[in-house]
Amino acid sequence: MRTFSSLLLAVVLATLPPAHALWPQPRNLRTGSDKLKLSDDFKIHLEAHVPQDMLDAISRTEDFLKKDHLQRLIVGRGSSDTNALTNAKSLSELDLYLESGADANSITTEAQKPIESRDEAYTLNVPNDGSPANITASSTLGLLRGLTTFTQLWYEVDGTIYAADVPIYTHDSPAYPYRGFMLDTARNFFPVSDIKRTLDAMSLVKMNQFHWHVVDSQSFPLQIPEFMDLSIKGAYSSSSVYTPDDVKDIVAYAGARGIDVLVEIDTPGHTSVISKAYPGHIACPEATPWDIFANEPPAGQLRLASNETTNFAANLLAAVARMFPSTIFSTGGDELNANCYDQDPDTQKSLNETGRTLEQALDVFIKTTHKAIEDLGKTPVVWEEMVLKHNVTLNPNTTVLVWEKSENAKTVAQKGYKLIHAASDFFYLDCGAGSWLGASPDSPNWCDPFKTWQHSYTFNPTANLTDDEAKLVLGGQHLLWTEQSGPSNLDSIVWPRAASSAELFWSGPGGNVSHALERLHDLSFRLQQRGVKSIPLQPLWCALRPGVCDAVPHTS
Amino acid sequence: MRTFSSLLLAVVLATLPPAHALWPQPRNLRTGSDKLKLSDDFKIHLEAHVPQDMLDAISRTEDFLKKDHLQRLIVGRGSSDTNALTNAKSLSELDLYLESGADANSITTEAQKPIESRDEAYTLNVPNDGSPANITASSTLGLLRGLTTFTQLWYEVDGTIYAADVPIYTHDSPAYPYRGFMLDTARNFFPVSDIKRTLDAMSLVKMNQFHWHVVDSQSFPLQIPEFMDLSIKGAYSSSSVYTPDDVKDIVAYAGARGIDVLVEIDTPGHTSVISKAYPGHIACPEATPWDIFANEPPAGQLRLASNETTNFAANLLAAVARMFPSTIFSTGGDELNANCYDQDPDTQKSLNETGRTLEQALDVFIKTTHKAIEDLGKTPVVWEEMVLKHNVTLNPNTTVLVWEKSENAKTVAQKGYKLIHAASDFFYLDCGAGSWLGASPDSPNWCDPFKTWQHSYTFNPTANLTDDEAKLVLGGQHLLWTEQSGPSNLDSIVWPRAASSAELFWSGPGGNVSHALERLHDLSFRLQQRGVKSIPLQPLWCALRPGVCDAVPHTS
Repeated sequence: MRTFSSLLLAVVLATLPPAHALWPQPRNLRTGSDKLKLSDDFKIHLEAHVPQDMLDAISRTEDFLKKDHLQRLIVGRGSSDTNALTNAKSLSELDLYLESGADANSITTEAQKPIESRDEAYTLNVPNDGSPANITASSTLGLLRGLTTFTQLWYEVDGTIYAADVPIYTHDSPAYPYRGFMLDTARNFFPVSDIKRTLDAMSLVKMNQFHWHVVDSQSFPLQIPEFMDLSIKGAYSSSSVYTPDDVKDIVAYAGARGIDVLVEIDTPGHTSVISKAYPGHIACPEATPWDIFANEPPAGQLRLASNETTNFAANLLAAVARMFPSTIFSTGGDELNANCYDQDPDTQKSLNETGRTLEQALDVFIKTTHKAIEDLGKTPVVWEEMVLKHNVTLNPNTTVLVWEKSENAKTVAQKGYKLIHAASDFFYLDCGAGSWLGASPDSPNWCDPFKTWQHSYTFNPTANLTDDEAKLVLGGQHLLWTEQSGPSNLDSIVWPRAASSAELFWSGPGGNVSHALERLHDLSFRLQQRGVKSIPLQPLWCALRPGVCDAVPHTS
Repeated sequence: MRTFSSLLLAVVLATLPPAHALWPQPRNLRTGSDKLKLSDDFKIHLEAHVPQDMLDAISRTEDFLKKDHLQRLIVGRGSSDTNALTNAKSLSELDLYLESGADANSITTEAQKPIESRDEAYTLNVPNDGSPANITASSTLGLLRGLTTFTQLWYEVDGTIYAADVPIYTHDSPAYPYRGFMLDTARNFFPVSDIKRTLDAMSLVKMNQFHWHVVDSQSFPLQIPEFMDLSIKGAYSSSSVYTPDDVKDIVAYAGARGIDVLVEIDTPGHTSVISKAYPGHIACPEATPWDIFANEPPAGQLRLASNETTNFAANLLAAVARMFPSTIFSTGGDELNANCYDQDPDTQKSLNETGRTLEQALDVFIKTTHKAIEDLGKTPVVWEEMVLKHNVTLNPNTTVLVWEKSENAKTVAQKGYKLIHAASDFFYLDCGAGSWLGASPDSPNWCDPFKTWQHSYTFNPTANLTDDEAKLVLGGQHLLWTEQSGPSNLDSIVWPRAASSAELFWSGPGGNVSHALERLHDLSFRLQQRGVKSIPLQPLWCALRPGVCDAVPHTS
């Protein structure tokens, strides 16, 4: 029988403080165990010609260092560091270097490059002797990533700001070029301030893609100058809209934080709300019983067999694409419902007149709408059905969002498409709260249970893929569909859970959840200090004692 | 085959606006369909000698009416009401009447009476002709409940505040005298402001009991003047404490809102943190592996076989009981771990010296600690194990919290104890987010899945009980254990879900979830208007169209 005393050593070992609490974990990292104070006159220097958003990032970084006020997550909250701090050196300077020959583009310009040409690598070196720290990169985007890592080094005790584990050296770069978060602003509306706060949080974990599912069947909050009636008649209210200025603001805010904005206008399904402004373009608008005509209420789909509707859709997509500088644009393509078209006399007439099947008409629709995007120099992104359920002609560069189940990645890759992991069984943040449909006393939601951070974190992005197929994986993202979410629970349902995919796709798979937990606690508290309502993963008692609240393995 | 047109009528009927949106549903209610404006010079009058907290409630009510700014949840958000409003009468006066012979006690005094002597009944009458509305009750607490109902009648469109369904008459009173909410402030700490906001929300749904699980094994935030070391050494930080003034503040805030505070000092288990200040009183403090010694980390229990510890516990409970005016006090009693005592030499020595078994020692401990409470005129409340798993002597008035599973209510009632429904399978708000233990990549929590509002709402409080046993049911409550919660998600994890039990135990069981959903949407939005981050239950599109997003029943 085990007794208390024989277990003391194990407890002591388990409660040693973590060496560092960076998130995502850098891919190469050497840390020491010295303390280093941040000097009151600490400054960040960058000699090169400096774009404005880089200057802003520097000033933001200096601000975070002063205002994070984060205490270490160890018993005593850092009071045990005070002795070591009396003799610790002070850091007065961080120097940023853009490698010779590198373009001094803005962070925004670098962040908005095609997915696979973004250069996010950086080298960070923090000596323990008080001599200047430095970050070197071959792009301003890389410098930003280095600054982000740098801000995660610092804690505060009794008014002293200090790093706990210098010297630090890392040469770091992401395992996957696409690390995203999707927000649905159509089921329920989110003010611009919520989106900006989300972008702040994304940037802290080095996510680089905000996938904005901006409109859907329920509401059309996006103001498009050429199509004003869509939002006038389709937004939840005249104030629940994103104006073109809001879009510019969000895109600029994201860009300055190293994040590109992938906007989605989901077509031809998920378009019921367009019927408010353009009834002629929508089949089965709000038809009942809704479940015959759509996966969720209200039903309504673009009349894809109609030339007029196809041209309308192409013009609409192009108008929206022109509002966003990204090189990618999502045309959606999920959950197309055939019954809706079967029972739509207008669609049947179009099909009869052209002699096309519905699938042939869909092919024309996709070719036309995608050409409108491609003519603007953009690559289409689609949900998986476009390659798994339909036989449409797609540009081979088209990028596919795998969503229904993660194992579908295999088939998408076999067909040769680049893919983004966005599967409901790993990355859907809305699952686990039961059905949101009315008149349904006690039924689960289709994607229950809740996807824990541990579950997402242990996802294998290349499971069952050959080496060649694995090269098609661009990365992945967490997603928030907002049937049961709004501004009230945006932060709490997303953070820190979504950080698990941010690390998975930056640091690469295979991370250990026990080690990750310590750092994820730290991240969650740092997010809170920055105004993001990230939630606790454990009692604070456990957060202060790494490993002590682990589940105990027992052999039977 | 169904077609669109044949289903139109059903849609039209389903989208008729709700007649009213009161929560909880009054037990007797007659409503009309006229509109009534609130006059700019609207005033609430109460002629009797008026206690200060009644005056405050009146002033708060006038404030809510002006500041709720709640739009109706119908398509157009009330714009279709504007025509009817031009000819609508205006209400200038609400008169409150305390029935003759009734005591003009403060609301607080009435709210803090023994559970079954609280008088919450009221009659509300709102004529449609602009003549004064009135609320009659035989206690100020009843008047408060009437005022609360009154504030839920009002909406705003284009700056006009109006009721949509007058005349209104209700004579209302609760089906069950105990309607509570439990908050654990020990796993993670919540500032006083969070508790007050929670009390505001509770009062809006006429909950009358705040069950404050204030301390537990992880932290001891309660400052007790006679036992200051407990919080000095056991709180998470010197600012994560509830001072005696905070307690007074919270108790007064609750009382003024018709809510009594049931404080709990869980004993003899769940007391690990006491070892920080009083190591001699705790067996197996932080012993590992924790799961041998406790249901969750850290282990540690009061040495119940020791006379000194028993007296310490009795003094501690009495000191806390003196801080709270309630006539009930929870001594806890859940999840006692026998291994902890079996392996504690001190406990074994005490048992040997007295010749008692552990159960006999527990009986002495419970008798002694409960006597300390009863000597102060208070009735003990205990978790179910005290009557289901242990053979201890309890005052027959002891009230039992049924928690592990709801069906245990039967056995508790068979033993003749009054009971409160607080079962994990219906009312635990923390379930459904997966395990919070570390090193546990993908394991469920013991009480998964998530308890939806529909699930709680359809609970039957007297299932399997005889009529006599049913009389022992005092009511019930939702509970938030905070291993995975903190200020970041307090509102969003609790509201509006907890309102489902508030209505269940006020209006009585048997409510229809479809009808409830319309009103619960309304409540959730009203809570948001009052600063409580209650979450959406559906897309706003559905909230505006009652029934249209219902699950569709299909016969196979």
